[in-house]
This record gives sequence, structure tokens and C-alpha cells, in this order.
Amino acid sequence: MFKKVLVANRGEIAVRIIRSLKEMGIKTVAIYSVADQHSLHVQLADEAVCVGGNRPQDSYLNMKNILAAAVGTGAEAIHPGFGFLSENSEFVEMCEACGITFIGPHSETIELMGNKANARVRMQQSAVPVIPGSEGFIADAEEALKVAAKVGYPVMLKAAAGGGGKGIRRVDHEEDLVAAFDNAQREAQSAFGDGRMYLEKIMTNVKHIEVQVFRDRAGHMAYFPERDCSVQRNKQKMIEESPCSQLTAAERAHLGEIALRATEAIDYLNTGTIEFLMDQEHHFYFMEMNTRIQVEHTISEMITGIDLVKAQIIVAAGGDLPFTQNDVRISGHAIECRINAEDPQRNFMPAVGKVTKLYLPVGNLGVRIDSELYSGATISPYYDAMIAKVVAWGHDRDEAIAKMIRLLKEMRVEGVTTNQQFHLEILKDPVFRAGTFTTDYVETQVLPRWKEKMGEE
Amino acid sequence: MFKKVLVANRGEIAVRIIRSLKEMGIKTVAIYSVADQHSLHVQLADEAVCVGGNRPQDSYLNMKNILAAAVGTGAEAIHPGFGFLSENSEFVEMCEACGITFIGPHSETIELMGNKANARVRMQQSAVPVIPGSEGFIADAEEALKVAAKVGYPVMLKAAAGGGGKGIRRVDHEEDLVAAFDNAQREAQSAFGDGRMYLEKIMTNVKHIEVQVFRDRAGHMAYFPERDCSVQRNKQKMIEESPCSQLTAAERAHLGEIALRATEAIDYLNTGTIEFLMDQEHHFYFMEMNTRIQVEHTISEMITGIDLVKAQIIVAAGGDLPFTQNDVRISGHAIECRINAEDPQRNFMPAVGKVTKLYLPVGNLGVRIDSELYSGATISPYYDAMIAKVVAWGHDRDEAIAKMIRLLKEMRVEGVTTNQQFHLEILKDPVFRAGTFTTDYVETQVLPRWKEKMGEE
Repeated sequence: MFKKVLVANRGEIAVRIIRSLKEMGIKTVAIYSVADQHSLHVQLADEAVCVGGNRPQDSYLNMKNILAAAVGTGAEAIHPGFGFLSENSEFVEMCEACGITFIGPHSETIELMGNKANARVRMQQSAVPVIPGSEGFIADAEEALKVAAKVGYPVMLKAAAGGGGKGIRRVDHEEDLVAAFDNAQREAQSAFGDGRMYLEKIMTNVKHIEVQVFRDRAGHMAYFPERDCSVQRNKQKMIEESPCSQLTAAERAHLGEIALRATEAIDYLNTGTIEFLMDQEHHFYFMEMNTRIQVEHTISEMITGIDLVKAQIIVAAGGDLPFTQNDVRISGHAIECRINAEDPQRNFMPAVGKVTKLYLPVGNLGVRIDSELYSGATISPYYDAMIAKVVAWGHDRDEAIAKMIRLLKEMRVEGVTTNQQFHLEILKDPVFRAGTFTTDYVETQVLPRWKEKMGEE
Repeated sequence: MFKKVLVANRGEIAVRIIRSLKEMGIKTVAIYSVADQHSLHVQLADEAVCVGGNRPQDSYLNMKNILAAAVGTGAEAIHPGFGFLSENSEFVEMCEACGITFIGPHSETIELMGNKANARVRMQQSAVPVIPGSEGFIADAEEALKVAAKVGYPVMLKAAAGGGGKGIRRVDHEEDLVAAFDNAQREAQSAFGDGRMYLEKIMTNVKHIEVQVFRDRAGHMAYFPERDCSVQRNKQKMIEESPCSQLTAAERAHLGEIALRATEAIDYLNTGTIEFLMDQEHHFYFMEMNTRIQVEHTISEMITGIDLVKAQIIVAAGGDLPFTQNDVRISGHAIECRINAEDPQRNFMPAVGKVTKLYLPVGNLGVRIDSELYSGATISPYYDAMIAKVVAWGHDRDEAIAKMIRLLKEMRVEGVTTNQQFHLEILKDPVFRAGTFTTDYVETQVLPRWKEKMGEE
């Protein structure tokens, strides 16, 4: 097992990883930017190295400085957390070149699944159902018209090499397709030097359902009960729960089978999450794979009792998966609310400041709060707005919701505005309680009512 | 179900009960003394009533004021927590007279088990093994000599009506017995108007093992996996764990059988805990029964996923026990450390003051901190020194211990001295790690080393 691991991240996930490492008796190295010098992850780690300025590209994305910190402190492995360098295949190769273990999949897998067009083709080859659309790439606008007619509008045209919103177009009507295709292709050619395009149907009235998978070097695999992450605003997950209240055990097993088939097909190593859309007939469609630990892994831990980060470390060190599929049993129901430093009364504008008063309601069974917060902590404008994950477990969904409402009412963060109240609005809503919400739920049902309420005040 | 419940207690247990009530959708009434007006339990409850001055007898033991608060606020039931009025049969009768449900056993049961001599006789009648000693009461010193010779010295002479240390004598040698008996009996006669005595062998090299039981009005019963509470200082529990690392599954089942036999024999209602001593041959001897929820119920909750306070409320409202024996399954291992406001460097002198800075490490799987603490809270000299219960759960005992060490190192309470360091001293000790410690472990093995260490500093 590793004696020392560097955590190449910040915020609550760095804190969370450091805690598991400590419990495993492994020494920890934190990295930080200038703005983060007093952050909790820096305080908790055994050692901490400043890797650069406040802009992510200067510090948490600064591959050379991070590797220098790892080499300099004698860390044998790097845990990337999520975001930042966690899905950067170049960084993985650089780690390998330095003889440092990257706690995650092979660089080839990251590269394959990072290219959404290639990932889609690979899944189709492995008999994993994908979102209706083109098989492979589209040669020209004429072929695009044919595929779109077949799958039905609206559709999304996407550049194979896409990223940052370039080479992507939503098309609602047939008459707009040709122009949109030509524009998008030109844009892609110019931005990426690669004009290859593919097409996907825009699915509506769907749930975001995802399955976390695990695989070790010896090929042992397991999947976790699905997570329903359909409560989203601006395509950002807000509330996640596991299991999904709308699935039967047979559907769960079927979904797990699909996920493991995909996992094996790409010779996956360590943990990752396969994201699907689920339509009203409960058909699943592959969307993409996240080749890293996810924000919402906490709820899977709460219903199974398995520490996923510890398992990541064991597998990365060459060990066997520390559990079998049979050990992954569902006990109760768990919900996570992402607490962001933002102002729901001012169009969710990011909030910054110093935490002047803090009360995290830590008591009773089935409560977990993963957070970078402490009294006196500073929330800076440089990074992600998520400052805490509040997780509630109950015997059933109703108990988990009741517990979450109780927690959010007790929790106090003063000095920095958060979205606590907006979460409570959702948690009390009958549509949320029914569990039938789809990915457009917050935008179409919660926000209009919220804005009306805000207008009244 | 009740619509409103009054919690007749303070501190972390009042907070813990209020939280479960809230999750059940039941309105909560707190009571408080003048010193406690800003306490967390007062802040969290829907309503709060001041029931008197700071001395316990003026407030938390003030039966009339508490009942007046219940009647005045329209509370239908009272949860007594532990300590204070929780084992006061007179209070239970007063509740009944006011038409208020006491969340606990019948007054007769409380009275029976509160008299340790009668409880011992009753258990003997129910074929529950008791600590070797007299069968029933001892007529005179001559009989005491016979019984002591049979069970072996040292023995404890106890007044049947005993309490407050009156009428109790430890006897190490035969030649001291007659005088001790006569003295103790005279003292008992004078203090309680009741000279009846009984005798128990003083057992050494034993573990304190206890079993929590539950029984509803319909007679459904269940027992929980045993708790090992042998880590004690001054006969006060410090660290509890469940299950006991030294028991086999067969021994666990046997102990559960004994506990349920006793529970049924006394027509027990609601939850209670039967305390046993366990010798080196793993024989169990009934010590006493606590007819209420206990401090350390948290660890049973952590390994079974059952909220015991919610179950208490359901059963008190006339409902069936919300689980069967089959639902009470052991998952992993849990440990609780009682954090006291006291100074282990100054002979555990009680500490008071204002909490100027607080960090409770709430993150990751299997962590629970039940506490009255918040930043700015005042710890007054009037009540019990216990200010927090830190609970760690792991897949196995080693993981639970590693997590507890991590938690106690992260936790920060400034402004009030606590026994955190002393806990860490125990948690790292090989004897503790081996799990073989007995009730004299802290006094004979930890404290001498601790004092030496303190002297050196």
C-alpha cells in the first residue's frame, strides 16, 4: 500500500479524500493556491505545498507544479478528486513518466471516454444502447437530414472533437438543419481542425440516471445501485438520490448488467460512472462516462456502507476490489443536497465572503455533511461554488427527505449566502415527493414559482 | 401518533430526541433552567418553557413545573431522556394522573428495577443468572459469613433500600465481616428505616456487557447486539462499543435469550438495558436494569440502522414495535467516546466556560456527533460534564478505531477543556486494541501511565 499520497484538488473533495487516507494510515500531501492557504484541506493534511496563483490554470491545473510537489514530498500516488486534472489523460501520462501512480483509470480510457463521439461509437459496438442518432459520424448535411428524420426533432448536432460549446447546434425544425450543419462543421473545422460531426436526438421528459462501476486489475467488477440526478439547474446537478424511487429491482439489475458490459468492453480500471437518460418507458440511453469519482458518490456510500475512495486507493495500489457484487446491497435510501455559495434571490449569482458563523447539524443517525466550511473560512471567487454536501439517509425515501428538511432548517452559514432555502423549496414540493420529476423539472416547475415568490417579496 | 411531545431533559440527549421528533413531524417542547436559556435544545425546539432555577431540583427535577409546562403547551407525551426524572416512578404516576403519556416503561417496572435488591430477587426467580451472593435477603451476620465463605471474598454488603452510598460496605477478609455487617445494617436502618441487607461477590477481571431490549404492548420483543462498556473511570463509562469483540455469535444469541427472558418476566414496556458482568469464562451475571434510553444507544443505532428514539415514541403511542428480531442485524462495528468538559491534566476536574471556537469533523461515511455544542455555547457548572458523543462506525473494529482517532484529532473545542487527549491515549493503547480490557482497565493501566506522563510535562 502507498505510504504517502498527494491530493490534487481542493475544497470538500480534498478534505474527504484526506480523511479516508488518514483512516488508512497513509500520509497526506495537500496542494493549494495562494487564496486557499488557510483552507480546511491544507489544515488537515500532513504536508501542504503551494502550487501557484489563484487562477485554476496557475495552480490546480498546473501539471508541472503538481508533479514537482509530488516528487518533492515523496508521494507515491496522486488522487485527482473530480474536476481539475481528474479526466486529463496527458496528466495521467505525465504521472506515469514520473513513476507516480494516478488513482484512476488508464490514460487511454480517459482519452477514449473524454471524446464523446468516440465513446458513443464504442458503446454502440458493445451493444450498449445510446441516445438515438447517427451511427458513428455524419458525412454531410444530407445524411444529417436522413438521420434527423428517422430519430425525430429536436436534434443536437455535435462536433466529434467538441468542447467549450464550439461546433454544437440545437435544431428544432427540418428547414433549419442544413444551415446549422454547415455552420457547426465550419466552426468545428476552424476551432479543432476536425470537421467530423455526429447527431443525437434531444430527449425530453427523461430522468438522468447513472451507475457507478468499479473494476480492478484482475478484472473483478461491481456496479452500484443507480443514482437519480434529475434535479438540475442549468444542467448542474442539485439534488441526487439513490436508489431511484421509480425503478424496479429487475430494472436495476438490467441497468447494472448494461453498465458492467460497458465497463468490461473498455478494460476499465478503478471507479467511474456511466450516465444514462431514462425515458418514460424506462428505456436507458448511454450519455457519457465520467472516468473519476463523482460529487454524489456519498449517497452510494450511505446506502451500501462502502467507502468508495478507500476502494479507489486499494485498487490503484494493485489490490483486489475489496467487495464483491454480492456485498453491494441497498440499505435504505440516501439523498444529497449540494449547498452552493450563491444567491437564489439574485439569479443564483455566486456569493463570496468570510463565514462569520457556522452551525452544521451533525447529530443523529444517517447524517453526513462533507464540507470545506469552518467558522472563519473564506469563500473566494476563484473556484466552484459548492461548499458543502448535505447527505441524509433514511429507512425509506420519506424518512430521508424528512431528515434532509430537518438538516437544512438547522444548518446556519452566516457571512456567505447559500442556496439552502431553494433546496427546501424543492424538498417540500409534491412533484419532488412523488419522485416522478425529469431533468427539466427545476427549470419548468420550480424556478417559475420561485421567481414569482421572490417578486412578491 | 402524538402531535406534540415535551422533552424533559437538556444537553445532547434533548437535542437528539428533538431531532427525531422533528423528523416524525411531531411538534416539540423544550424545558430549560435559567442557565440553559441559550442552549441548543431550546433553540431547536418549536416551543420552550423555563421550568426553574439552575439547580437540578429546581428545574429538570421539578416535577410539578414540568407537568405544568406539558399541560400548558398541550403536549400529549413526555420523553424523559436519561438521568433526571427518567427512572422516577412517582413522576410516571403523576404523568398518568395528568393524562400525559410517559415515554418509557410502566411505573411498577421502574420501581421494581430501581430497587436493586428486589430486581436481583426477581431475576433469580426468572432463571436469569445473577452475581454470586445471597438468595434474597440476609437475616444476620452469621448468615452473611456463610454466604461469603461460599462465594469467596471480597464481597459487598448492600442495604436493600440502598442509595447514595449508605448501608454499603466492601469486605475483603472474613475477620472484618461481622463488624461491617452490623455497621452497614445500623446505617441502613437509620437512613432508610429498613435494615434488610443482601450480599454480592465483588467480581474482578470482568467486562461490563449490556443488552438493550425492546417490547411493545402486544408483547413483540427484540434485543440488540451487546455493548461492551468496560472502559470506565470512577465507574463512569468512557468508551462503549458494539458488538463486543470477544463474543461469538452463539454467545451473543445466548445472552439475547437471557435478556428477553428477563424482559418478558417483568412485563417490560418500551426500551431498557440489562447490564451484565462477564467473567473470563464468558459467563454472564445480571447487575441491574436501566429502564430508559441510555447514553450509548447511538452505537446500537449505527450498527443496525434503527432509530431507537423513534421506536420508543411509536411504542409509547401504542404502536407495534417497528422492527422484528430478524431486522436487528449487525452491520460493522461502532464505537462511542464520551467527550466531557473536564481536565484530565488536573485530575479530571470539571471545566466550564464559553466555547470560543468549535470544529466538529462531520464528514465521511460512518461519523456521528451528538452534541449540545455550538460556537458561543456556555458550559455551566450545574449539570453533567458530558458535552458531546463522538461515534465512529467501520466495517470492522480496526476501521472504527482508525476513524475515531481521526475524528478526535480533527475535533476542536476552544474555551472549554475536554478529555479528548485522554481518549486518544486509550484508543492507541495495545490493550484497548486487543479488546481484552476489563472494567478496571482505565484505573489500573491507563491512569498510572497518564499521571506519569503528566508529571513529566
